[in-house]
Amino acid sequence: MNPPLSPSREARLRIRRGEHVGHTVAMAPGHVQGNLMILPKALADDFLLFCQRNPKPCPVLAVSEPGNPFLPALGEDVDIRHDLPRYRVWRDGVMVDEPTDIAALWREDLVSFVIGCSFSFEQALLEAGVPLRHVETGRNVAMYRTSIATEAAGVFHGPLVVSMRPMRPADVVRAVQVTSRFPQVHGAPVHIGLPHLIGIQDLARPDFGDPVEVREDELPVFWACGVTPQSVAMAVKPPLCITHAPGAMLITDLLNHRLASF
Amino acid sequence: MNPPLSPSREARLRIRRGEHVGHTVAMAPGHVQGNLMILPKALADDFLLFCQRNPKPCPVLAVSEPGNPFLPALGEDVDIRHDLPRYRVWRDGVMVDEPTDIAALWREDLVSFVIGCSFSFEQALLEAGVPLRHVETGRNVAMYRTSIATEAAGVFHGPLVVSMRPMRPADVVRAVQVTSRFPQVHGAPVHIGLPHLIGIQDLARPDFGDPVEVREDELPVFWACGVTPQSVAMAVKPPLCITHAPGAMLITDLLNHRLASF
Repeated sequence: MNPPLSPSREARLRIRRGEHVGHTVAMAPGHVQGNLMILPKALADDFLLFCQRNPKPCPVLAVSEPGNPFLPALGEDVDIRHDLPRYRVWRDGVMVDEPTDIAALWREDLVSFVIGCSFSFEQALLEAGVPLRHVETGRNVAMYRTSIATEAAGVFHGPLVVSMRPMRPADVVRAVQVTSRFPQVHGAPVHIGLPHLIGIQDLARPDFGDPVEVREDELPVFWACGVTPQSVAMAVKPPLCITHAPGAMLITDLLNHRLASF
Repeated sequence: MNPPLSPSREARLRIRRGEHVGHTVAMAPGHVQGNLMILPKALADDFLLFCQRNPKPCPVLAVSEPGNPFLPALGEDVDIRHDLPRYRVWRDGVMVDEPTDIAALWREDLVSFVIGCSFSFEQALLEAGVPLRHVETGRNVAMYRTSIATEAAGVFHGPLVVSMRPMRPADVVRAVQVTSRFPQVHGAPVHIGLPHLIGIQDLARPDFGDPVEVREDELPVFWACGVTPQSVAMAVKPPLCITHAPGAMLITDLLNHRLASF
């Protein structure tokens, strides 16, 4: 008999076999999930530099060799061509397909970037007793383009995108403490309480995701968001770019608790 | 020749000899300064329990043996009867004297409590690049009674007193990170941004200290304050109680940097 598979590997195998094509929320609890961005090598070097200069929105968990679909740092068997439930294929900045497998599109010059996502710090917040309204109501987090410019690198530049979670003041303190421990998955908030100072005019109208109520006894708290690298990359209109479909992430063997810095 | 004295011991000796009777701000930079509260043994046990139950406003650095004026944990030579520049003597809750020495009042039943103060975390904030307006303008920090009750112990009970520092949102995040490292000197903020939720109606009218401007691009940030144990103790109207005079603290040999928890 073989030893039992880890929950993360089991989830990847189900996805690889086409048995799961939806989002990955709550799959393999405790394991780090990642955003995917695949670019041709001709753009990948600048994109890596962009991530290095903007670690809060673009915390890189792993970068593949060109043409190599494996990412052993995230799981021995990870094959980026099959292991996400759904992908988005973009040509010249336009989405042209949403396949469940990208083996047919694979090329020798493709480089995969896996970028940390907020699922990890949201688990830590919930474990610390900080309620998250968008999770409770089963909605997507509210995201906004800001007036804060990212640090440009080569062709890549554009505004910082942030996610927003409303919370009571004592939870704001706890949330800063908890998320500061996770620099690889966006880390501490970038802003608290005064959205107009970062170019957000109307909290009720997010640029991405779903709106969420901010009650009178709450402050809006803003984190750098993994939509930033995607929106920056699309602005360049790369000849080919492949990303995860929203919510359909790569499930890695890394444990959220292992990411904590202290 | 004797080895040179540490700056903290040198400061204490100047004070002990009566050469310095003013406040201790900026004396022996980098050394922990403490609030003083001396109570008769009959009240001291309950007061210690009160501090244990309310560590954010009452972070105890050291407690003496009854009748023993020395506090070797804070400095080998510390003699609490002489080593503060100015004291306040309270009888039945009324201030009756502000001497520079309390040797004549010493009794075999007196217990000294030295409680951490915000000077330590303010140094850490300034070193982290977080500006503090009350320091820049040479004023006392603004302090407020809140609607938050402390946890009672024996005869001791009363509202939490907080200090307030206005800061820009990015500095709020940094301030939570920095002060979380210093649980022995009040630690992380207890509230951010919505003062009416903690019973503060008018920021411009502090209950203690000086008012400070909160600008449009700033949030008020609130920390538990060492005035809390003093105000709670006075409410009991102890037959005898001796405290430091405002700003005239005990300078210890402890280093602020050594208090940091990570």
